[in-house]
Amino acid sequence: MNAVVVAVGSELLGPGRRDTNAEWLIARLFELGIETTSRTAVVDDVARIARAVRAALVDASAVILTGGLGPTDDDRTRDAVAAALEVPLERDDAMAQRIAALFTSRGRTPGPRQVRQADRPRGALWIDNPLGSAPGLLVATEQSLLAALPGVPSEMRAMFDATVAPRLATMARGALAATTLRIAGRPESFVDGLVRDLYAWEGTETTILASAGGVDLILTARGNDAASARQRLSGLAGAMRERLGVDVYGSDHDTLAAVVGALLATKGATVAIGESCTGGLLGGAFTDVPGSSAWFRGGVVCYADDLKTSLAHVPETLLAAHGAVSEPVARALAAGARRVGSADFGLGITGIAGPSGGTADKPVGTVHIALADDGEGRAIRLDWPGDRDLIRRRAVTVALDLLRRRLLA
Amino acid sequence: MNAVVVAVGSELLGPGRRDTNAEWLIARLFELGIETTSRTAVVDDVARIARAVRAALVDASAVILTGGLGPTDDDRTRDAVAAALEVPLERDDAMAQRIAALFTSRGRTPGPRQVRQADRPRGALWIDNPLGSAPGLLVATEQSLLAALPGVPSEMRAMFDATVAPRLATMARGALAATTLRIAGRPESFVDGLVRDLYAWEGTETTILASAGGVDLILTARGNDAASARQRLSGLAGAMRERLGVDVYGSDHDTLAAVVGALLATKGATVAIGESCTGGLLGGAFTDVPGSSAWFRGGVVCYADDLKTSLAHVPETLLAAHGAVSEPVARALAAGARRVGSADFGLGITGIAGPSGGTADKPVGTVHIALADDGEGRAIRLDWPGDRDLIRRRAVTVALDLLRRRLLA
Repeated sequence: MNAVVVAVGSELLGPGRRDTNAEWLIARLFELGIETTSRTAVVDDVARIARAVRAALVDASAVILTGGLGPTDDDRTRDAVAAALEVPLERDDAMAQRIAALFTSRGRTPGPRQVRQADRPRGALWIDNPLGSAPGLLVATEQSLLAALPGVPSEMRAMFDATVAPRLATMARGALAATTLRIAGRPESFVDGLVRDLYAWEGTETTILASAGGVDLILTARGNDAASARQRLSGLAGAMRERLGVDVYGSDHDTLAAVVGALLATKGATVAIGESCTGGLLGGAFTDVPGSSAWFRGGVVCYADDLKTSLAHVPETLLAAHGAVSEPVARALAAGARRVGSADFGLGITGIAGPSGGTADKPVGTVHIALADDGEGRAIRLDWPGDRDLIRRRAVTVALDLLRRRLLA
Repeated sequence: MNAVVVAVGSELLGPGRRDTNAEWLIARLFELGIETTSRTAVVDDVARIARAVRAALVDASAVILTGGLGPTDDDRTRDAVAAALEVPLERDDAMAQRIAALFTSRGRTPGPRQVRQADRPRGALWIDNPLGSAPGLLVATEQSLLAALPGVPSEMRAMFDATVAPRLATMARGALAATTLRIAGRPESFVDGLVRDLYAWEGTETTILASAGGVDLILTARGNDAASARQRLSGLAGAMRERLGVDVYGSDHDTLAAVVGALLATKGATVAIGESCTGGLLGGAFTDVPGSSAWFRGGVVCYADDLKTSLAHVPETLLAAHGAVSEPVARALAAGARRVGSADFGLGITGIAGPSGGTADKPVGTVHIALADDGEGRAIRLDWPGDRDLIRRRAVTVALDLLRRRLLA
């Protein structure tokens, strides 16, 4: 069983707008074991809404609409649902009286606009609205369901949970379970190559998603009930973890910085930063974790080369011999951060984030990352392309992962 | 002229996912004077993607797709566009060679998967991808355009701006004009109160949108032609700027850090940072600006109190007398950053970002921000509530704005 969510409202298509009603509905449908196969937001236009509803009815056994049920002229969902179902819109006199009574009880006079809310496509049932005046619409058979709910989030949520969810739960024979495996320090193609044959695991689906320096494997499993879905999921997740080993740093909402922080806390160890091209983003990532003061000390940002010497004690001779973007300088930054930060570990980052500053020898995207510890430390060189933002965020991810792998070694 | 945005990817329909690519595209289309009449996100399924594309082609003269152009099996956009247009998918040997060469140049061996990226529906043109291996697809006539772009945000954005936007600008016989006035250091209610009566300006619409420490006024004007729309817009924008004065730091895509950087560059001045609760985010914001090495020096991150003394020379007596989160310590951090960073200006930030660590006297959200210069400097105290992320980002915005106002004084 699958669902399509249609959100109605011109305001949803404006700049800077986010469709949070759809996001909420998708999460609730998922909990009911129902996969949402598409979501659409559409302006207040009868023909366009009707087209979206017709397409949704072809695609899905559950169609959930939100918005466009209010009293104003640009509330067009009633008309559009009637058009999509090819039935007339009819006034329900009992509902009209109820709406009028509601207004009168609040000391207001109901006008013709309010009474429009008593119109419904022939054959539709009302969904009671405990929080407002706009009732919802329900068109249901044993195999399919169309529900239209108001756009006001509190009303939409209450009506979905009270009336729509129980019906869907009866329809959805089966359950879904999902988890995300989070991987760092490996390219997408490498991860894909390691686990690709597991994508065919029975009753499951896998999506691979790359971000700056990280890869997510999103796993979904289907079962007759929640327990069997979870069992399938843990079978697949276990098989993938076995292949990927230490490349998997966490799951679901784990962040790499929080995972590294937890490892540091377990060992009672601390870290300090010496950043050049990332300018403080690595420190920003560490301190994004609540409670990071237990293991993050601070450090130095040495964007200018003379500060690499004065703040992180990188020898001028090293800068002259190898250039600021080099492994020896990254190692010296890490060691300097460790020393001036009085920390167990130091991380140093120096690179060319662009868009200018690249050379044939050291093109934009060249980043040296080093870890200093009480031994020989570690260093890594990145030379993947990308824009300034991507190069910097990737450098932060790889630096965090370098420390994570050292802590696990 | 209108547009439909179709985002492809099963991960977009998972719980807790937000479709930020569509949000970005809608904003950019809006700036080009093109109204988005619907947006759809759809799972990686050829039939469903093709259905969404066909519906979009009926509805809009511009159809923008993102996602599903990568090398893996669940990248299905190429097949779906071919199916929707009812044309065959054909391999472009020249593109196949280009993709193979790109992989080889990075020391990797291209497989059959990578070469799938050289398949295109008959009649489609390539959209060059300057940042990755997946090219985009363009199917255009004089009156209509379909563009398929990768889902990686940096690639999608670069390709839209370089190739798609100029074509759309030619198609859109500009009845809309839009601009955003960007304001920092003032609450939304203050800005709203100053300009509210101007929202009724004839033929225009204003949307007010608050972010962390900033407020955007999004102005749209409609006219018979581009010139009349622009004229209306500049009338409204001028009236608003007169009311808001120096509170407006820029417009459209200006970032506060870039505006501050430009002011520093004009004066030949430099800045250094001394960060506690923001942990490097202020340095991260400064160095997000290409060319920031001309005016950003670096500085110190002093999350641990002893580093405030050892790295930024904050007197221990000051910490003992006032606590780490206090105006004197913020001023000392700023002065220390200015000195150790050998800069003209120093910015210091110390605060309680939460979720724990608050007291009755200094609740979560208390942040002291100070500016050190060759005179008395400046300081400001924030005590607005919010979550950890919001409090930290707001502190960065206010710190940048403190320096901006000083540079304009």
